[in-house]
Amino acid sequence: MQSKSTAIAAAGALPVIILIDPQLGENIGMVARAMLNCGLTDLRLVRPRDDWPNPRAVSSASGADLVLENTKVFESTSDAIADLNLIYATTARDRDMTKEIVTPEIAAKEIRAAGSEQCGILFGREAKGMKNEDIVLANKIVITPLNPGFTSLNLSQAVLLLAYEWYKLADDTPTIELRMKDTRLATNEEMLMLFEHLERELDNHGFLRVKEKRPVMVQNIRNVFQRANMTEQEVRTFRGVVKSLTQFPGEKIDTK
Amino acid sequence: MQSKSTAIAAAGALPVIILIDPQLGENIGMVARAMLNCGLTDLRLVRPRDDWPNPRAVSSASGADLVLENTKVFESTSDAIADLNLIYATTARDRDMTKEIVTPEIAAKEIRAAGSEQCGILFGREAKGMKNEDIVLANKIVITPLNPGFTSLNLSQAVLLLAYEWYKLADDTPTIELRMKDTRLATNEEMLMLFEHLERELDNHGFLRVKEKRPVMVQNIRNVFQRANMTEQEVRTFRGVVKSLTQFPGEKIDTK
Repeated sequence: MQSKSTAIAAAGALPVIILIDPQLGENIGMVARAMLNCGLTDLRLVRPRDDWPNPRAVSSASGADLVLENTKVFESTSDAIADLNLIYATTARDRDMTKEIVTPEIAAKEIRAAGSEQCGILFGREAKGMKNEDIVLANKIVITPLNPGFTSLNLSQAVLLLAYEWYKLADDTPTIELRMKDTRLATNEEMLMLFEHLERELDNHGFLRVKEKRPVMVQNIRNVFQRANMTEQEVRTFRGVVKSLTQFPGEKIDTK
Repeated sequence: MQSKSTAIAAAGALPVIILIDPQLGENIGMVARAMLNCGLTDLRLVRPRDDWPNPRAVSSASGADLVLENTKVFESTSDAIADLNLIYATTARDRDMTKEIVTPEIAAKEIRAAGSEQCGILFGREAKGMKNEDIVLANKIVITPLNPGFTSLNLSQAVLLLAYEWYKLADDTPTIELRMKDTRLATNEEMLMLFEHLERELDNHGFLRVKEKRPVMVQNIRNVFQRANMTEQEVRTFRGVVKSLTQFPGEKIDTK
């Protein structure tokens, strides 16, 4: 198993599984088992309901202890994805957000193609699914094609399908690629810093002054940048753009 | 849900899921749920350990009652498959039998190709897997490609992967789409107007003042927005952003 994991890692980074507000230890254990079935080992929990480590998770993991021992707990989704470059959010249904929607199969291909870029897949709480504020953090949405009359997957089943599609591609070569010249995809933290910089300035300039509309406006603006899968260099460029537009209003600066 | 099942059935017979010697009601319920997720409704149990119906199965089925209500119990595997034409047996590893071995994906394709022939998929007891005497009854063996160091799938996970591969082949809808709410993709002209607006302001603010670098900077900025496949509404939002950042510098405007 170790050697398999190493072999996979050498071919590209392993995607990270992030469970937001998971409730049942049994489900967390089954997620760990499904992950290891498919060679994945990096599990992160955001605000698990019960204490961690959780003995119920250990028993339902049926031997996937390696995954549970490595599992990290975070206070917020942002913290959990701070070091990741490409984020997918899984939902059972359309959320009326202008974000690209892909199947688990397409997501798996994209994650393989991302090579050494670190990808993460977000899963919401049992029964309730993901909150919009978490979906906004993602670059894309994953919806699994299922019987439209009965789309509610058990949490570990949802993780399994993504992990399985990813594992199936183990021997395939990348088919989709984002060309990057002397740079890398931005981390989520870098994206957040851009967003906060822009929103702070928009607040200063009164653009987000209507309180009820602010969350939607912020979400719309963030969505555009998230969809673009920005590089670190592009984030720096846009921070420069925001700084420039706000710093030297209405007149040419002295360029000497 | 009913109409979807009917639609699928019209295109070919639904495969039957047969659990041999299942032990835990929870697993049977989760199998029913995974089946209905993928539009399957015919579940058969051979010698379940506990009485049937089983309340634990009902609670873990999370609403897949339709499947549980139709579930039939048999005394032997032969009885359970008597009316079926093509039988697959799932095992975690090779059994040294001279039988064709296929993946879930291949099995799903064959079952679809079988048209109105009735197919069945056998699953063995939790942890122990299938006995050779049952495997002998099958036409082919299904082995799911998994991490060789950790191949033990939960029973419902094993059923899900087969059912999911089968369901995927029904789905002819586009796999990638961009969800749009009350809007449409921006025209090229609208994108150009956004670019020219932004670049004019960046020129005014001295950001693009280094002549040799200007074309590359402009290209980098345009690339980000182009990649995002912006909607008409989002273009309007960003024109508002540019206008706001440049119009009310460094201080809150009077919002009355």
